[in-house]
Amino acid sequence: MDKELIVQQVLNELRAQNAAKEVKEIAPKMAGSVDLNKCGMTEFVGTAMGDTIGLVIANLDESLHEILGIDKKYRSLGIIGARTGAGPHAISADEAVKASNTEVIIFETSNDTKGGGGHGNLIVFGAEEVSDARRAVEITLNSLSWAFGGVVGNEAGFLEVQYTARASHVLAKYFGAELGKAWGLINGCPASVGMLMADAAVKAADVKIVKHCSPGHNTCFTSEFTIFVTGDSGAVKQAVLAGKETAIKLLRTMGGEPEAMAKPYF
Amino acid sequence: MDKELIVQQVLNELRAQNAAKEVKEIAPKMAGSVDLNKCGMTEFVGTAMGDTIGLVIANLDESLHEILGIDKKYRSLGIIGARTGAGPHAISADEAVKASNTEVIIFETSNDTKGGGGHGNLIVFGAEEVSDARRAVEITLNSLSWAFGGVVGNEAGFLEVQYTARASHVLAKYFGAELGKAWGLINGCPASVGMLMADAAVKAADVKIVKHCSPGHNTCFTSEFTIFVTGDSGAVKQAVLAGKETAIKLLRTMGGEPEAMAKPYF
Amino acid sequence: MDKELIVQQVLNELRAQNAAKEVKEIAPKMAGSVDLNKCGMTEFVGTAMGDTIGLVIANLDESLHEILGIDKKYRSLGIIGARTGAGPHAISADEAVKASNTEVIIFETSNDTKGGGGHGNLIVFGAEEVSDARRAVEITLNSLSWAFGGVVGNEAGFLEVQYTARASHVLAKYFGAELGKAWGLINGCPASVGMLMADAAVKAADVKIVKHCSPGHNTCFTSEFTIFVTGDSGAVKQAVLAGKETAIKLLRTMGGEPEAMAKPYF
Repeated sequence: MDKELIVQQVLNELRAQNAAKEVKEIAPKMAGSVDLNKCGMTEFVGTAMGDTIGLVIANLDESLHEILGIDKKYRSLGIIGARTGAGPHAISADEAVKASNTEVIIFETSNDTKGGGGHGNLIVFGAEEVSDARRAVEITLNSLSWAFGGVVGNEAGFLEVQYTARASHVLAKYFGAELGKAWGLINGCPASVGMLMADAAVKAADVKIVKHCSPGHNTCFTSEFTIFVTGDSGAVKQAVLAGKETAIKLLRTMGGEPEAMAKPYF
Repeated sequence: MDKELIVQQVLNELRAQNAAKEVKEIAPKMAGSVDLNKCGMTEFVGTAMGDTIGLVIANLDESLHEILGIDKKYRSLGIIGARTGAGPHAISADEAVKASNTEVIIFETSNDTKGGGGHGNLIVFGAEEVSDARRAVEITLNSLSWAFGGVVGNEAGFLEVQYTARASHVLAKYFGAELGKAWGLINGCPASVGMLMADAAVKAADVKIVKHCSPGHNTCFTSEFTIFVTGDSGAVKQAVLAGKETAIKLLRTMGGEPEAMAKPYF
Repeated sequence: MDKELIVQQVLNELRAQNAAKEVKEIAPKMAGSVDLNKCGMTEFVGTAMGDTIGLVIANLDESLHEILGIDKKYRSLGIIGARTGAGPHAISADEAVKASNTEVIIFETSNDTKGGGGHGNLIVFGAEEVSDARRAVEITLNSLSWAFGGVVGNEAGFLEVQYTARASHVLAKYFGAELGKAWGLINGCPASVGMLMADAAVKAADVKIVKHCSPGHNTCFTSEFTIFVTGDSGAVKQAVLAGKETAIKLLRTMGGEPEAMAKPYF
């Protein structure tokens, strides 16, 4: 009898542990925080959420300039790579080019998220001085701590919304923004959630869809539906928030309460 | 001594729990059943196996008609999205168009299955009336409960076979079927299993391969080998069953006993 | 009091078990070893690490010759399929063509690794005699036991290096090698790790980059950055080892101590 009670007590504790583990299922996949120079390499800048690692190369080998088609004036590169995320990295890299003498010259995304339905990425900043490249990488890593606040998910899927009142060169070059104007990202997984988000967003405010991504159009490899919108600052914010609200209601029908990866920043 | 016995008893219980968990490794990834209107949104229709969610949009925003190239006569859309599956959704959507006044206007697949080797998908039904769109989505969600019976897997990989004696517009438009004729899908992961299934299938009965998908041909993004076959109804059924039998033997060499996701329907 | 001690003891044991489980997180995904003929099918050759299965078809059905564009002189096929790996399979298949009267006629890769950031694959050997096809598959399966020694990873990502002093037809046909010359593969995930490996490698020794793969160039679907190099045997080995050393330092900043999937072979 006593034995059974003990067994029960242990099992209860374990169940509680497992429940906590399930709730945090997404969080460990997002592990990592800015932690400067753990490895003693001059190339290492830091790590961040999303298994993101930031690096610099002071003098890129010329053979890599050639094979990657990088202008030789960019002898220094800042490099961001991540297993999870594309939107948080896009808006963070955009902050970085605003505040550093760099340009993003590669922005590639892959189907990754460690088995999730979203992206991993590779971002390369070109710079003439390594200090500029390093600064761009540092700003990106730091910005990720708020930009992941745009990602909200549960065990079934997720939504992502990103918003800026003033887009810079990265968002303009790769994601349809107009320089200095408001821009928003509206994305959901599974893709049907993203599609309903898109419809809710464009009905909620006077915004223009400037780009759409889906695997059927060969514009992404992931299990998502994404649109990018522009317009007046207030309208863009209203649109992305309408998309977010729609997705949260839908994700709830498929699993537990959706949780944000970081504190929402708008 | 007594303490050790108790510890042993608890550990045995936990091992049994873990064993059960491993056996069901695939099942929770397939969670979800038709559950009407959990979220109070008029757009929500239901959920189903494979993290599938079914939605309707009564009046699609015109900007989305444009960006997606959808004919404006389809003001109402039925939308299916899933993290796992393409075959079960294809044959279910085909049932839906047979029984509703709709057409499938988007059928996209992605590499997903939450870390597995197969597809996720986005399917859009176009309709002039939202009641038609809703009906198509409802039929698809309900059909998935038998169509997932075509998927059989273990921890190493899986096979999928689908069969209909009478293909309709979805299978004809996207998967090589002839309208009103028998059609079969033969698919395996890893791809070598699918290739041997294909060879066994076409040797077992007089069928014609009408389409083949693999990542090397840019016709899918997944770790699978797939063929679609047509022919007399009996021959198609015999071919897909020969493929299934082959795959089950091979998957057994790689892991535990393969289990069907639902009761096989043929 | 005694009860609490027991509970504590059980929980400690479980924590130890879980710790061991986490350390081995990658290993079970790589499960499988050469195990000849578990299923009684003449087509079955064996299984190997990476959920690899090796098969033969003595007389391929003509309809598959046609749909896959395979020369009909290759009536027999050896087939390798895997959920995890492309490099280990490439170098193993290269060993196989050196030692058998076969040619690799299909080498496809997909984004798989069961939710990781790397490849799965499908490799087809063409042969005029089934005994040749079988021999090629056997050599490939056996070679994988050392070739996986080139893969080193932790919970955040991984690196892969492969090296041969004398490349044969597979590496020449698909991966930029020169017949009979040294060849190396340098690959990292996330892609930023691979990019720094590439820079370190080409700076460490006089090698030539002959090919580069990334999802942004549509040359792979995975979350990796890869280069292939040629040069003198000593230089190629020095380059790939420099890449490996770089990646190990970087992966340590993102997670636990990186572990090799098998004993490194060079």
